[in-house]
Amino acid sequence: MPVLVMKFGGTSVANTDRIRRAAKRVGVEVAKGYDVIVIVSAMAGKTNELVGWVGEISPLHDAREYDAVVSSGENVTAGLMALVLQEMDIPARSWQGWQVPLRTNSAHSAARIEEIPTDNITAKFAEGMRVAVVAGFQGISPEGRITTLGRGGSDTTAVAFAAAFDAERCDIYTDVDGVYTTDPRISDKARKLDRIAFEEMLELASLGAKVLQTRSVELAMRYNVKLRVLSSFEEPSDEAGTLVCAEEEIMESNVVSGIAYSREEAKMTLVSVADRPGIAAAIFGPLAEAGVNVDMIIQNIAEEGRTDMTFSCPTDQVKRAEKALSEAKAAGHINYHDLIADTEVAKVSAVGIGMRSQSGVAAKMFKTLSDEGINIKVIATSEIKISVLIDRKYMELAVQALHDAFGLDKAA
Amino acid sequence: MPVLVMKFGGTSVANTDRIRRAAKRVGVEVAKGYDVIVIVSAMAGKTNELVGWVGEISPLHDAREYDAVVSSGENVTAGLMALVLQEMDIPARSWQGWQVPLRTNSAHSAARIEEIPTDNITAKFAEGMRVAVVAGFQGISPEGRITTLGRGGSDTTAVAFAAAFDAERCDIYTDVDGVYTTDPRISDKARKLDRIAFEEMLELASLGAKVLQTRSVELAMRYNVKLRVLSSFEEPSDEAGTLVCAEEEIMESNVVSGIAYSREEAKMTLVSVADRPGIAAAIFGPLAEAGVNVDMIIQNIAEEGRTDMTFSCPTDQVKRAEKALSEAKAAGHINYHDLIADTEVAKVSAVGIGMRSQSGVAAKMFKTLSDEGINIKVIATSEIKISVLIDRKYMELAVQALHDAFGLDKAA
Repeated sequence: MPVLVMKFGGTSVANTDRIRRAAKRVGVEVAKGYDVIVIVSAMAGKTNELVGWVGEISPLHDAREYDAVVSSGENVTAGLMALVLQEMDIPARSWQGWQVPLRTNSAHSAARIEEIPTDNITAKFAEGMRVAVVAGFQGISPEGRITTLGRGGSDTTAVAFAAAFDAERCDIYTDVDGVYTTDPRISDKARKLDRIAFEEMLELASLGAKVLQTRSVELAMRYNVKLRVLSSFEEPSDEAGTLVCAEEEIMESNVVSGIAYSREEAKMTLVSVADRPGIAAAIFGPLAEAGVNVDMIIQNIAEEGRTDMTFSCPTDQVKRAEKALSEAKAAGHINYHDLIADTEVAKVSAVGIGMRSQSGVAAKMFKTLSDEGINIKVIATSEIKISVLIDRKYMELAVQALHDAFGLDKAA
Repeated sequence: MPVLVMKFGGTSVANTDRIRRAAKRVGVEVAKGYDVIVIVSAMAGKTNELVGWVGEISPLHDAREYDAVVSSGENVTAGLMALVLQEMDIPARSWQGWQVPLRTNSAHSAARIEEIPTDNITAKFAEGMRVAVVAGFQGISPEGRITTLGRGGSDTTAVAFAAAFDAERCDIYTDVDGVYTTDPRISDKARKLDRIAFEEMLELASLGAKVLQTRSVELAMRYNVKLRVLSSFEEPSDEAGTLVCAEEEIMESNVVSGIAYSREEAKMTLVSVADRPGIAAAIFGPLAEAGVNVDMIIQNIAEEGRTDMTFSCPTDQVKRAEKALSEAKAAGHINYHDLIADTEVAKVSAVGIGMRSQSGVAAKMFKTLSDEGINIKVIATSEIKISVLIDRKYMELAVQALHDAFGLDKAA
């Protein structure tokens, strides 16, 4: 029988009533004839409780013990889900990561999946079991210790199982009903996309859209796993949610698929840096070491051997960046007159695979912002994305204007 | 280095502060030169929360899934305890049951321990690890599923580890500071015992003393594991608590070591039963099948082919007993005129290995009760125990009078 992977996040299994509702969805797919692998997260709030206890004990904790503690929430949900399914007369059992075993490397708290043997679960399907409920987010290291996969680990688990079992699809049940052209809270014209390409989803995820973690999308793209994002709080249908898939499976699409934004950006400018070969490395090396996630970078044209260097980073990393740069200056590695941090900026991005074949997208974006009187502070582009840094007060206006300009309220 | 096993119950690890306090005790023993195996329960209330969820889902649950769910609480405590010890610079790590692996049979939710390999933990001790923190109450079945050991499972885990590792002692930390000659809430003359024999502890446990589960004491007796019960809420000392040990290790003892009681007893009398061979089996067979725990039994001398049969059972099983007996009567298996349930009785017992060599204990007990005007309804004796059923309103008086009569307020 064809295999379907279904993943339920924390809010979808927050209590026994919600676990029951999720199990009903599973029952619908079983009735269609699928053998189903269900990946579950911990009940909402449980992982935070566990992380809180670890924090109370040990800020600099042993990641192996941290993993042993925080993985327990998923085990609870897996057992409860199996029990609900059995109550519905659906043959089901739970698996913890080590029972599969989902093998990972030894990078505790951020482990990478190395292997998912399928024989164990496949044999049970052959014996008549219809649902394997697997605790997400966790695996076992070569040393036999429990590992966790880090942020978005349950989504990643789901995609990895879909790849290993050659599943027809991987359905990610969450608290939103799909991927939107932009945040509906900012534009009431935001429209749910029926399909979106892996590459677009990747850009949107890294630009601040919180529907799927980058890592699970990367994995889905690599193994060509069809990923569907849908809400566990709406009535199920075959058209529900958004399908994240290969570009070839999208017949028609707008040039731009979505407008993303990130509110918590800061723009930092090093004024009058002594320009010399290697100066960029001298600046960004210490920042990387200090764990500052530098996003956009621009360097002005040098005049009289000096230049201005501007970069962006998340607002909450500004202090860390200032410290790293002033230390580098004190150590004589770099030389600048002033360091100016502008924490009142935001990043707005247009994303679309159509950009590859269509010219004029950037021009249209800049003109739209100009018409609204919005000044662009920094620009960064990739093959399928254009991002601009603007004053934060214009963020909503920019998102709405770009959404209109690229016709995102209308289906392609 | 000699091995010590230390077990901490749910109230001793109820939150991170208490886990810290427990860890300090462990540190004291490590400083003395012990390699320590710590067995932990779930944080107080956590197992009940998990059991509650299972109950919400499925009253007739799959015990394998139940075990997978309820075992998670101990895993959390084990990881947290290891982290606290590491913070104290004590090399420590956690083990879940399947990692040891603690092998059990497949009797889920009431599994019996079959094997505890020591090589894994012993190798870590040899490498310099000083504390192995093991999640109590759980193991792994031959099928690779998680099992739990049922009531008192963490105490049993501790004793089994002490036996497997040939530990010098097994310290059970709980919320009482030892075993008393009787319940201090009933007699203010109750005295903590320094030592008590396994057999006595077994009788006291089965007679209602809640300090240790019968099963763990049985196991300790079989493998001659020295068991110490002590409070995690008092300052530690070598004389703390009560040592449960072999009879030979107790130099001097009172004839009677303790007075136990059980408040929730009922006395049931079948009036005018037709007396014939096999009548006892016809009565007590159906009761056993109905899950009634019959304790004491007396049969009056038969007159004219009829007799009265009296037995005791816990108060909350009276309804079940009545149903089983009336059904057996309706089916024609037994015949009686009336069934009288007296739910206003209590059981008071004197326990002591000294009874084996000393005569007159029973006589002294009966006279003491008689002097107080307390009527004895049923008597049952074993080699080291005398139990009587009396009116519940006299229970406290009986306990106090017997405690005085046998001189339990004075050390032997």
